[in-house]
Amino acid sequence: MSARVELLAPDGIPEIRPGDDLAAIIAEALRDGDIGLQEDDVLVITQKVVSKAEGRLVELASVSPSPEAVEYATRWGKDPRQVEVVLRESAEVLRMAEGGLIISRTPHGFVCANAGVDLSNVGDGEVATLLPLDPDGSARGLAAGLGELLGVRPAVVISDSFGRPWRNGIVNVAIGVAGLEPLLDLRGAPDAQGRVMHSTVIAVADEIASAAELAGGKTDQRPVVVVRGYTTSRVVDGPGAAALVMDRAHDLFP
Amino acid sequence: MSARVELLAPDGIPEIRPGDDLAAIIAEALRDGDIGLQEDDVLVITQKVVSKAEGRLVELASVSPSPEAVEYATRWGKDPRQVEVVLRESAEVLRMAEGGLIISRTPHGFVCANAGVDLSNVGDGEVATLLPLDPDGSARGLAAGLGELLGVRPAVVISDSFGRPWRNGIVNVAIGVAGLEPLLDLRGAPDAQGRVMHSTVIAVADEIASAAELAGGKTDQRPVVVVRGYTTSRVVDGPGAAALVMDRAHDLFP
Repeated sequence: MSARVELLAPDGIPEIRPGDDLAAIIAEALRDGDIGLQEDDVLVITQKVVSKAEGRLVELASVSPSPEAVEYATRWGKDPRQVEVVLRESAEVLRMAEGGLIISRTPHGFVCANAGVDLSNVGDGEVATLLPLDPDGSARGLAAGLGELLGVRPAVVISDSFGRPWRNGIVNVAIGVAGLEPLLDLRGAPDAQGRVMHSTVIAVADEIASAAELAGGKTDQRPVVVVRGYTTSRVVDGPGAAALVMDRAHDLFP
Repeated sequence: MSARVELLAPDGIPEIRPGDDLAAIIAEALRDGDIGLQEDDVLVITQKVVSKAEGRLVELASVSPSPEAVEYATRWGKDPRQVEVVLRESAEVLRMAEGGLIISRTPHGFVCANAGVDLSNVGDGEVATLLPLDPDGSARGLAAGLGELLGVRPAVVISDSFGRPWRNGIVNVAIGVAGLEPLLDLRGAPDAQGRVMHSTVIAVADEIASAAELAGGKTDQRPVVVVRGYTTSRVVDGPGAAALVMDRAHDLFP
């Protein structure tokens, strides 16, 4: 006897552009990859393709930096237009580090580098990709769309890679969740020896996002991963990744 | 075409006791579960069973709390003997929270609640389980032992569940690593569009630890998970989880 969970990442998802029907593109890739969708599947989708489909892109050439952005950028040797976009996407700036890294709290409550803004070169210009405005809403929409197309409504996790204090390297976390409880609350549940566990709440949506990265990879064109065989608390939509954001009153490192 | 990673957790691993030959017990469970070991497998093992096998246990009844522990415990309504054990296992205390939660830096450099000390009831008394003294050494030893028993030397990750600032819930991270590079350094590697990525170092050992939790579970008696199909940078032993500990000079939240 053993437990078995599979992480399945289809190839063949093309470069996503604003206005693309992401659910339809994913459905096709799942069909072509002979993966499909099964009951209890969790679909992990990278933030980047969701943001692109939703048109959350800003051409740096179109950005007029504020005096504050110019001051920051000059001080840290950065592009003032990039700093401007990061500041616009930040509800609060927590730290500025050497090299111009900005740690901010986004309007969603996520604490991450550069407010989740990614820069990439598209043609001749630089384009900033922003986080979705409402990643939980994006996840719900994708779950519903895939349910219509494939006849099974998956849970959906939208992932992004965040750094952490005290530990090197970035890990994937959940920034949008639909169809599963993002937190598995084992408080009061008996452990393997039948004793009651007291203070265990597991951020399963974050662990699912991290797991997906193992199959999806970072440089590969595999922005979608099916997590199959993981039975967790399924809900129609649930509280979303918003439930993963710590109440600042409880945060020991605000 | 698609990428596929499996997470396989054998049943049947008994309660581990000090002095148990953990490699032999795991080897038997992998054989009995028809899982075995294959080239490139990563074996994830929870800290709790490693600590128990290594005898990293303290009976609370044997602990004489220091005046400092008594003062802390009185202030927060905790058992002074528990506080004493946590303080002994802490290189530095970062925060004391209401309810008596202590956030410390361990001698290994890990920042976590209660210095990684778990309490459980064994018979009539309470027993504290401490982190392994040298989790990277434990991982190397288990990798070598399993290699001898099964003819394939796996990479080994020893996992524990840590809380994080800013996000609710705990997630599994790597506290000991052997046989793989814990950090995947993509700096300078081209992304899917052939552009050069600039600042991406992925904490793959932490993601592997998190992934394993999906198959191993928290309340289940499945402290061992085989991650199969994930091809990462394999090394004979490598820098271990020590490479995941951030240099305090670079930490924005010291």
